[in-house]
Amino acid sequence: MKPLAQLRKYSAELVDLHHALALMQWDQEVRMPRLAGEDRASQFATLSALVHRREVAPELGGLLAEVEAQKGNLSVEECALLRVMRRSYEQNTRLPEEFVAEFSRLTSQAQMRWLEAREQSDFTIFQPLLERLVALSRQQAEYLGYAVHPYDALLDLYEEGLTTAQVTRMFGELQAPLVAMVKKFAGRLTPLSFNEPFSLAGQEQFAEHLLVAMGFDFSRGCLARSAHPFTTTLGHHDRRITNRYAPESLDFIFGALHEGGHALYEQGIDERLAHTHLDDGVSLGIHESQSRFWENVVGRGNPFWQRFFPELQQAFPAQFSLLGLTEFVRGINAVTPGLIRVDADEVTYNLHVLIRFEIEKGLIEGSVQVADLPGIWREKYRDYLGVEVPSDAEGVLQDIHWSHGSFGYFPTYTIGNLAAAQIWEAYKQYDPGFQQTLADGNLSKVREWLVREIHGHGSVYLPEALLVRVTGAPLSAQPFLAYLEEKFSTLIG
Amino acid sequence: MKPLAQLRKYSAELVDLHHALALMQWDQEVRMPRLAGEDRASQFATLSALVHRREVAPELGGLLAEVEAQKGNLSVEECALLRVMRRSYEQNTRLPEEFVAEFSRLTSQAQMRWLEAREQSDFTIFQPLLERLVALSRQQAEYLGYAVHPYDALLDLYEEGLTTAQVTRMFGELQAPLVAMVKKFAGRLTPLSFNEPFSLAGQEQFAEHLLVAMGFDFSRGCLARSAHPFTTTLGHHDRRITNRYAPESLDFIFGALHEGGHALYEQGIDERLAHTHLDDGVSLGIHESQSRFWENVVGRGNPFWQRFFPELQQAFPAQFSLLGLTEFVRGINAVTPGLIRVDADEVTYNLHVLIRFEIEKGLIEGSVQVADLPGIWREKYRDYLGVEVPSDAEGVLQDIHWSHGSFGYFPTYTIGNLAAAQIWEAYKQYDPGFQQTLADGNLSKVREWLVREIHGHGSVYLPEALLVRVTGAPLSAQPFLAYLEEKFSTLIG
Repeated sequence: MKPLAQLRKYSAELVDLHHALALMQWDQEVRMPRLAGEDRASQFATLSALVHRREVAPELGGLLAEVEAQKGNLSVEECALLRVMRRSYEQNTRLPEEFVAEFSRLTSQAQMRWLEAREQSDFTIFQPLLERLVALSRQQAEYLGYAVHPYDALLDLYEEGLTTAQVTRMFGELQAPLVAMVKKFAGRLTPLSFNEPFSLAGQEQFAEHLLVAMGFDFSRGCLARSAHPFTTTLGHHDRRITNRYAPESLDFIFGALHEGGHALYEQGIDERLAHTHLDDGVSLGIHESQSRFWENVVGRGNPFWQRFFPELQQAFPAQFSLLGLTEFVRGINAVTPGLIRVDADEVTYNLHVLIRFEIEKGLIEGSVQVADLPGIWREKYRDYLGVEVPSDAEGVLQDIHWSHGSFGYFPTYTIGNLAAAQIWEAYKQYDPGFQQTLADGNLSKVREWLVREIHGHGSVYLPEALLVRVTGAPLSAQPFLAYLEEKFSTLIG
Repeated sequence: MKPLAQLRKYSAELVDLHHALALMQWDQEVRMPRLAGEDRASQFATLSALVHRREVAPELGGLLAEVEAQKGNLSVEECALLRVMRRSYEQNTRLPEEFVAEFSRLTSQAQMRWLEAREQSDFTIFQPLLERLVALSRQQAEYLGYAVHPYDALLDLYEEGLTTAQVTRMFGELQAPLVAMVKKFAGRLTPLSFNEPFSLAGQEQFAEHLLVAMGFDFSRGCLARSAHPFTTTLGHHDRRITNRYAPESLDFIFGALHEGGHALYEQGIDERLAHTHLDDGVSLGIHESQSRFWENVVGRGNPFWQRFFPELQQAFPAQFSLLGLTEFVRGINAVTPGLIRVDADEVTYNLHVLIRFEIEKGLIEGSVQVADLPGIWREKYRDYLGVEVPSDAEGVLQDIHWSHGSFGYFPTYTIGNLAAAQIWEAYKQYDPGFQQTLADGNLSKVREWLVREIHGHGSVYLPEALLVRVTGAPLSAQPFLAYLEEKFSTLIG
């Protein structure tokens, strides 16, 4: 077999094994009996170790070098496969085995301590673990290597090529306009509240209805319940999502649109990339752009609800029969500076992310100490959002990410929001009648464009190159700020 | 690490990996999207190959030899672990890799062709594949080795130590009395039929209720729907069952009791055997004894329904409110010679198995030709059961086993039926008030005895030795025949 064919085979094998691991995680969230946690952890560790051995095998290093030597003869997609596999090989081999084991042990402990700390709203319970995680993450950055700032190495783990300088510039463009918009729009739209609970079966049915309307293909995926909604891939023809249902919340709608957006991206990847490392969204930021596109840009817009609000009223007459469409759309867009990132509206959301970015950058470069985090957190929430943080649980302990040892992840949320608005501008140029398209519920027109422009390519193009292909420009805050300004000015009238 | 500790670690790793494979199969039956079959097949093949490599590794052979050299110092359980792992190592290493690959390719094809043949009720579609499978199975017997009869090697795959001579003797004791009983009891009890469908949700709820009553632990297992009910183990604390629900059938009850019986066996295995090759039922025959014990011996008896029939009436008043308990119990035991094994009553069931045993033995020793099977099938069904086989679909094509290349499996069904009756005799000696125990619904008394006597030991004792420990005697047809005679004489009155 020629080196390229061997590399493809190696890729297919690793992809299969990662899907086996993903199935374990899916099942753990969706179906696993309560007491089976230790069994599953052991299975996961055993299989992960086997997979890791295949991922760092000198055989793979040799194959990569052989294929790189013939790079001139490769197609765009073959080059991309080489790029993605080389990147993964470097990430896996640059970290010594003992380091990986220690990191993994520490994050298991940290997750338990973080849960405990959050339950008791006491940061000091989590603090020693977080200190060790920060130390290890700084070490990780050294192992991985970086050109300018150690945080660059961590950002790159989630968004290939992203640098601290880029993120700093991005938030530099965003911060002042967002703070101004919060002042201007906060409290001007009335949030919705319900006296009558939504039936759980009814919520699930409506979520499914929206997913079908978006074009989620149930013959190549499924929808289940879990405590925290997520999307996962278990095979080229097996992209699954979960959602959650609470009696008095509209999360079932926006959860479905959000996860549906992720899943459409995955389902839209071209068949010819199946069973390779390219059969995946290219980065967390681009992935988030797709979920936010459907959840916010489409799913919190008036045109979309012109089509679906009558159906929502029909499904839940007790809650919606007396409510008007305008009132509903204003309600689901209410701007309210708050404490919790995951509950934030579109205007305040990125300020939550900015706070985390500033803290992470400080921790990794050593200018911020873990012990000072609760104070820094309170201060920044006061400065940027004008809210007082009453407890660690509602403050510095709210997110799970750091207990996973994930530093550098948060900025991808803002990249997603910005990219979604930028992609939306491009879509509007393609379809000037977009308002009517959405009001007609012709979502397949939107989805087909996304498949052609973004989804179909999988991981072939780097995030930045992909955005330039689709929108004509690299990532910028301007489309997002313009989108917010226009949307909220119109809503408030 | 000492050799024994290393062997334990090796065992734990293999057990983890087999549970990962079992999860793939579970998910495939229960949740996988319709179009994901090829993805899953590829994942299964990739992981199976990795696992197989670990199972035939010379490292494992060396470890086994080292531990065997110190066998004098081992405990009963350590010896058993060695026995089970040695047996599995021999089964895996005696078959050449090309043979395993060919067998696996052939069975994939055979399953598709068998389905097609059954749909069209045309044996000739399946015949060429079956001929090759028989040839390969004869070769398999040679690779595995045997003392007397080639079929011994195949029987041993499913029931450690079982021989053709033993099975011949077993059916020798059974055949004439069963044929006589069929004549005596057939048509004397009126089967139940329903005009009103059972609601699916109601069936599932009642099945769950029965499982809870039996003592199935839902914190260490779960119940799902699938096309064909089965039980599987995904971890020491993760034993799962599936059931199926049709609008006008009582299968939901007997499926739950049957799979529940398998699952109780697995859930009852002692914690100290967790994460080793001993954390499993010892053989298919003993496993089937547990499912048949609950499905038939307990679950088709009058005392059990004294407790549960009023609840069944309450759950499904339209079907049962006008029916008496006696009429119900007679109905669920109606003896009717029929064409289909899986629909057979307790009296005729083992004659179906006998027919398959005689055919398999003939195929493997070469005295029966595949081309003659439809005719032989018709002849034997006429002779033993007095029924005319109208089509291949309702005859020689009804079972999936041969398309899997499973020869030697069927006799374990009869072993299960016989062992269940023999174990029941032992239980009655332990609990002379057994009728009242069941009528009170005190199923935990029964289950606890089974756990102590059978379940707790996992695979520590060989099937025959286990039966002798529990019942004082090796497997015999007499308790089963006595059980049938007494039960049906009483029911018919």
